[in-house]
Amino acid sequence: MSCALENTSPDRKKTIAVSSRLKEGRALVEDVWSIFGAANLPTDCISLGQGYMNFAPPKWITDAAKEALDKIATNHYSPPRGLLRLREALKQHYGSQLNRDLDVKSEILVTSGADQGQYSVCTAFVEPGDEVILFEPFFDPYLRWVTFNGGKAVFVALHPPADTIEKPSSHDWTIDLEELRAAITPRTKMIIVNTPHNPVGKVFTKDELIAIAALAEQFNLLVMSDEVYDCLVFDGKEHVRIASLPGMWDRTVTVGSAGKSFAATGWRVGWLIGPKHILQPTLSASTRIVFCANSPLQEAAAAGLELARTNLFFETQRQEYTERRAVLCEAFDRLGLKYSLPEGSYFVLLDVSRVQMPENYSFPDSLIGRGRDFRVGWFMANTIGVSALPISEFYSEEHAKIGEAFIRFAFCKDLDLLRNAAERLQNLRKYIR
Amino acid sequence: MSCALENTSPDRKKTIAVSSRLKEGRALVEDVWSIFGAANLPTDCISLGQGYMNFAPPKWITDAAKEALDKIATNHYSPPRGLLRLREALKQHYGSQLNRDLDVKSEILVTSGADQGQYSVCTAFVEPGDEVILFEPFFDPYLRWVTFNGGKAVFVALHPPADTIEKPSSHDWTIDLEELRAAITPRTKMIIVNTPHNPVGKVFTKDELIAIAALAEQFNLLVMSDEVYDCLVFDGKEHVRIASLPGMWDRTVTVGSAGKSFAATGWRVGWLIGPKHILQPTLSASTRIVFCANSPLQEAAAAGLELARTNLFFETQRQEYTERRAVLCEAFDRLGLKYSLPEGSYFVLLDVSRVQMPENYSFPDSLIGRGRDFRVGWFMANTIGVSALPISEFYSEEHAKIGEAFIRFAFCKDLDLLRNAAERLQNLRKYIR
Ligand SMILES: Cc1ncc(COP(=O)(O)O)c(C=O)c1O
Ligand SMILES: Cc1ncc(COP(=O)(O)O)c(C=O)c1O
Repeated sequence: MSCALENTSPDRKKTIAVSSRLKEGRALVEDVWSIFGAANLPTDCISLGQGYMNFAPPKWITDAAKEALDKIATNHYSPPRGLLRLREALKQHYGSQLNRDLDVKSEILVTSGADQGQYSVCTAFVEPGDEVILFEPFFDPYLRWVTFNGGKAVFVALHPPADTIEKPSSHDWTIDLEELRAAITPRTKMIIVNTPHNPVGKVFTKDELIAIAALAEQFNLLVMSDEVYDCLVFDGKEHVRIASLPGMWDRTVTVGSAGKSFAATGWRVGWLIGPKHILQPTLSASTRIVFCANSPLQEAAAAGLELARTNLFFETQRQEYTERRAVLCEAFDRLGLKYSLPEGSYFVLLDVSRVQMPENYSFPDSLIGRGRDFRVGWFMANTIGVSALPISEFYSEEHAKIGEAFIRFAFCKDLDLLRNAAERLQNLRKYIR
Repeated sequence: MSCALENTSPDRKKTIAVSSRLKEGRALVEDVWSIFGAANLPTDCISLGQGYMNFAPPKWITDAAKEALDKIATNHYSPPRGLLRLREALKQHYGSQLNRDLDVKSEILVTSGADQGQYSVCTAFVEPGDEVILFEPFFDPYLRWVTFNGGKAVFVALHPPADTIEKPSSHDWTIDLEELRAAITPRTKMIIVNTPHNPVGKVFTKDELIAIAALAEQFNLLVMSDEVYDCLVFDGKEHVRIASLPGMWDRTVTVGSAGKSFAATGWRVGWLIGPKHILQPTLSASTRIVFCANSPLQEAAAAGLELARTNLFFETQRQEYTERRAVLCEAFDRLGLKYSLPEGSYFVLLDVSRVQMPENYSFPDSLIGRGRDFRVGWFMANTIGVSALPISEFYSEEHAKIGEAFIRFAFCKDLDLLRNAAERLQNLRKYIR
């Protein structure tokens, strides 16, 4: 399907043409989330594909949501910047980490999830023809945020761990600074940094960020730092905010998500932190795109941040995710398959190049033209009963081949489900060459 | 302020340029909602400016929201199309009115409020350079939905009631079909129809819609029919859906809002109803702009539609709004000021040409360069203690003069507040010439 409209109407003269921005970057092709959605998988398949939890947010946060539903104002429009209570809570949460006294009137913007906030930054700043640098693999909506706003995505690789590394970590996915510099042209407007990284799990080191920052300064680039997994960093590893580096506040927008922070992905509350000259135009865009984020769950997110200050929620949650990661990674260890141990986020990349599928296995049409990783993912879901996401979808078409070696498992699931998946995964052994 | 960035940074070389799409259509200028927001008005001012309720949604709907918060799945991502339960409820709600067996898989799309849905239609269909026809006055975000997506807005007037009409109705705001036809060029892509109309309150007649439909067919145009006030139509007047007219289903997207239907503007749940060839590309856009609407309040909106089938909620609500409208309009009658009695929506336009402000009255800087209606609105808020919105903001810059005669009052408020406002409004008498 290259264009839905032309396919469904027999009379070409009478079709209403889709905007050309949808024809780029495979935006009309069925996306990986749909192909590997529950509706297409065996009913008893354990889904470790999609990045949402199979547990509820903490009760003390849903209780706050219920209280908000009992009030009048918090059932109605919020200011497009966000409810003041949430902005105050964010000021506290980020203030010390960024070492700034944040202005709730101009330096914090609440959005309908981190996605909509980042889309709005692109609408506000990406001029048609502007170039935006993405590190591959990238969270797949990035590409459309750029192209839908008339920009051009330019790709810089995160290089996979060398084959010689016995037990790779997400840290072994590296950037080549010369390649990054070479990707910058007079049309470059922005770099999107994602740390902790989806799907790799990499937590960028301070040195890496300093190097990226130096280039951003030198070439006057905006930096959008997608840090939605900032509260999921493991093993005492330090999460550095690029906005906190010298000189970077003025050109950086830092992105966060209540959905990821509080196990409530369906709440659609996110935020942007940055200087007024970035957030004011972004607010102009955001106000017209969605007006404001939903109010009751903004209020609940505010309560969440307030309470987390004293109840050690983020520490406990980090501990829980560390255990979840261990269950999954041990299953891979037992299988003898390589994976990159993630320093952050809730994803693990498994190297499936050694998985050998039966030659006569038959795949559905939706996989035609897709990479080997799509077939491995499909085969595993249907044969082993555990689903994961193919990673070629997180690469540009030119470089999709690199991604075909990997599939992504999400461990934002309770221990029971993960143990169950770990057992099933052992059945993969007979397909490993 | 023409460009936030250039103003705040002293070093031009180092500024990060805002996209030019934000420089058109006054998108960076402080908008009317902010100027007349509570923060800028006297604390005891009764706000009839903004269109949200000072009462809560019905308890049986917030109860459904609380139930959703107690479940796991409804705290997490929904399918980007929307929760199935809500799509099923919408199928029932719209099916009979459109006389169609709607396909929940392809003909219904849930969005984060009606705004984000309509923005996404523009992203999917408006090609840079395409023209979109708006009837003036228009709900002000329309302009930016078009320009942010590279389109050009073309304006067609709703003509105000003739001076000779003693007691005008919103019905007396009329379109001139010749003017509409003359506005259509080879680049015209879409017409946005809004019925019941904000801010006029007009409910387009079947004949008017048939005439618009004929032009849409003749020139192969998409019609976006913003019907968010469809459950607020008074005096037995018929609300016609343009999508139900012969031949129109295939080129129309019908827009609705849980916020307006259930007195829950802060819930950010809206929807689009239309054929697959319009909704499929729109889904591609919507998925990348916001991913999905928040899940708990989608579930509650579904319960709302299900229960409203038997508890006569919409009938009762219509009755309540009819009483609210009466309180406000009687206050204008007592003052002897002309207004257009609205057939639908919860807005009344008051003609303030006869209001005479003291010559030496001093206005804030935010009003410089704005129309007389901004000054009347400001004067009334500060002198009488009732705020309303200036209507020139709902016109293009060229035609803003026409709007300067009117200010808009919202009657989505409880009777006590409206009666209180009605009393205060009598103090305007001494400023009427
Ligand atoms: C890197 C990254 N950024 C942003 C998001 C979206 O966050 P939200 O749900 O708050 O829109 C995700 C969700 O998977 C993500 O992985
Ligand atoms: C005509 C019109 N359309 C759309 C909307 C926005 O609806 P929602 O709150 O569902 O985004 C409004 C809100 O005032 C409106 O007046």
